[in-house]
Amino acid sequence: MWIEVDYQFPEHLDAAKQAKVLAIGQTAGTWDERFAAQAEALQQHLGEPGELVRNEDGTQVATVCYPLMNVEGDIASLLTMIFGKYSMAGPAKIVAIRLPKEYGTKPKFGIKGLRELTGVSGRPFVMAILKPAFGLKPEQHAKIVREVAAAGLDFLKDDEILVETETSPVQERLAACREAIQAAKSETGREMLYAVNLTGRADELQQKARELVKLGANALLFNVLAYGWSVMESLAADPEIDVPIFFHPALAGAICAAPDYGFRYSVLLGTLAARSGADAVLYPASYGSLPFEASEEAGIRTALRKRNVMPVPSAGIHPGVVPQVLADYGTDVVLNAGTGIMDHPLGPGAGVKSFFEALDRCQAGLPMTVDSVEEGPLKEALRKWGGSA
Amino acid sequence: MWIEVDYQFPEHLDAAKQAKVLAIGQTAGTWDERFAAQAEALQQHLGEPGELVRNEDGTQVATVCYPLMNVEGDIASLLTMIFGKYSMAGPAKIVAIRLPKEYGTKPKFGIKGLRELTGVSGRPFVMAILKPAFGLKPEQHAKIVREVAAAGLDFLKDDEILVETETSPVQERLAACREAIQAAKSETGREMLYAVNLTGRADELQQKARELVKLGANALLFNVLAYGWSVMESLAADPEIDVPIFFHPALAGAICAAPDYGFRYSVLLGTLAARSGADAVLYPASYGSLPFEASEEAGIRTALRKRNVMPVPSAGIHPGVVPQVLADYGTDVVLNAGTGIMDHPLGPGAGVKSFFEALDRCQAGLPMTVDSVEEGPLKEALRKWGGSA
Repeated sequence: MWIEVDYQFPEHLDAAKQAKVLAIGQTAGTWDERFAAQAEALQQHLGEPGELVRNEDGTQVATVCYPLMNVEGDIASLLTMIFGKYSMAGPAKIVAIRLPKEYGTKPKFGIKGLRELTGVSGRPFVMAILKPAFGLKPEQHAKIVREVAAAGLDFLKDDEILVETETSPVQERLAACREAIQAAKSETGREMLYAVNLTGRADELQQKARELVKLGANALLFNVLAYGWSVMESLAADPEIDVPIFFHPALAGAICAAPDYGFRYSVLLGTLAARSGADAVLYPASYGSLPFEASEEAGIRTALRKRNVMPVPSAGIHPGVVPQVLADYGTDVVLNAGTGIMDHPLGPGAGVKSFFEALDRCQAGLPMTVDSVEEGPLKEALRKWGGSA
Repeated sequence: MWIEVDYQFPEHLDAAKQAKVLAIGQTAGTWDERFAAQAEALQQHLGEPGELVRNEDGTQVATVCYPLMNVEGDIASLLTMIFGKYSMAGPAKIVAIRLPKEYGTKPKFGIKGLRELTGVSGRPFVMAILKPAFGLKPEQHAKIVREVAAAGLDFLKDDEILVETETSPVQERLAACREAIQAAKSETGREMLYAVNLTGRADELQQKARELVKLGANALLFNVLAYGWSVMESLAADPEIDVPIFFHPALAGAICAAPDYGFRYSVLLGTLAARSGADAVLYPASYGSLPFEASEEAGIRTALRKRNVMPVPSAGIHPGVVPQVLADYGTDVVLNAGTGIMDHPLGPGAGVKSFFEALDRCQAGLPMTVDSVEEGPLKEALRKWGGSA
């Protein structure tokens, strides 16, 4: 069994030579006659250079095949092998990884589980972000929660930078928000999932996650790239943490944004995130507020769905993009809006309703221009943010 | 209390504007009149743009000051705040971070502790890497351990890619190597530290580290960037793991090597690694086999020493560089050699001795040319690898 990795090199490098350096240097290395008797045992750990393709722009993509036995089935040992020391050797970007089917950690819920848990099908989920990120007291968070949950919101998440603060310790915030969720549920019959931001040192964090779940947290948000892949896989494997985990891509740009270094976004937030145990993965929408290529976005979406992980295009999402979202993404997706819900002129509840109005109109085949929409939350949203992506 | 971060932007960007985007967008964000009553509470979480400097090459460095209350005193929440979502917004590189004195996790040993533990002072430590990385059985590892420990080696480490394999499960490897270390100790009176590579899912890994220590592991190696900063801090804070932890920089290139993105090496492997709880941090030597700037290396060394963390320049280290090492690095450093010890023509034991011969000659003010050195391990090493850096 092999793991295949595609490395992209700039035009001036000898890509065939680099593939050999990787195949040997990142595996068993070289050995001399002292180890001749072990040659077979050593040999089976060696990688092998594969195909070499020259792109039209002059960059070259070299494949290196690694023995599956050199890793432990997790993301961290994989990263160390395929790019550990070599990442410091000069320009090279990992643009694809092909793994055995069962590699990595499976999500507890994923797309199917989120559909079953919520009873929602046939449309994208709508998600909002609790804003302002900092400075609110638990009861102020809860007030917003009450409003968006009553409006029928599917998922709400903390801002990824919200840590434990004196004004809003996570257990107090959760307690207040939990009450608000219950109150809304008694009206709507549906329970909004609220992804609480999980922070702290690895050991304490896992324990905290268990406690939060016991206290009623029905989802978690986790900054995997800042805290660690091995922690993500731990959380996913923990039977006591039986709630969906949302993977936040904070820091991904430091690893993916450079043209000649690091990882392609679709590898990090697609291929790898899909095998991290997360149930849903956030990433920038290509027509949102961050610079993001449609091809990378499509790569992420495809990689996630293939493994039953829910794609969550984010940043700059507002009701005006719903027609394009449905056309481009289909329905197995979470539309994650921050300001697009919280800054609605009529308040966050109206922000939520504007999304559902937009979804209903699209599914009914009705136009989405400001003029064609009756007065109400959607019209207000279109007035503020426009109707096109 | 503030955390100050310097971001470097390419010439064409409006750095002053980006600093404002960071100061607001990575903290409390904006809010409307609904939160007017909370303005003070929100305000105290806001960042502030600081100085803006234009470099001679046209790049600009903008400082952003963040309230300390927005983070939890650890590396992971710091990374999320200062570069989380923003890292995906376009070219920007973090080139400096200034933190309050007590920020982060302290090493259990560090430079002082390693000196006390070993009784070695007045010279650099010498470290080797167990090679071949893969495919040896525990008794073959132990044979090498026996040889280098008997030759007086200070520290030995696993290769960072060595995971749990069928041929060499870590507990069996440790048991065999531990016996070899004891046998050598009974001859030399000194105990070599053997840094066992710690791998696995975060939860299991911490438990495994405790067990390894109980079984006699006297040091650990950890790929912090692949497994997670929060795990490193957990290990450092665990009183049962009372052995030095060596921080391996695997993957650092994916985060640091690009000119306009990610982090400067001296920030990641210096400033941040120094506060991660690691006792010693490995990084490429600027005159080794990896492309690495002397200024970055100096930055790392200074940042680590300031916090009592041992610098471990690595990759391409051989006895011929010892004079330059002493001149450039001084003595509070670990010289980490892979092939420079394991591939010595007379074997790994001679490889170790060649380093000590080189150190002795330098400290005695003797020349280090091949001709001036008497027959023996050092002369052989100089013949193979040359005498200059």
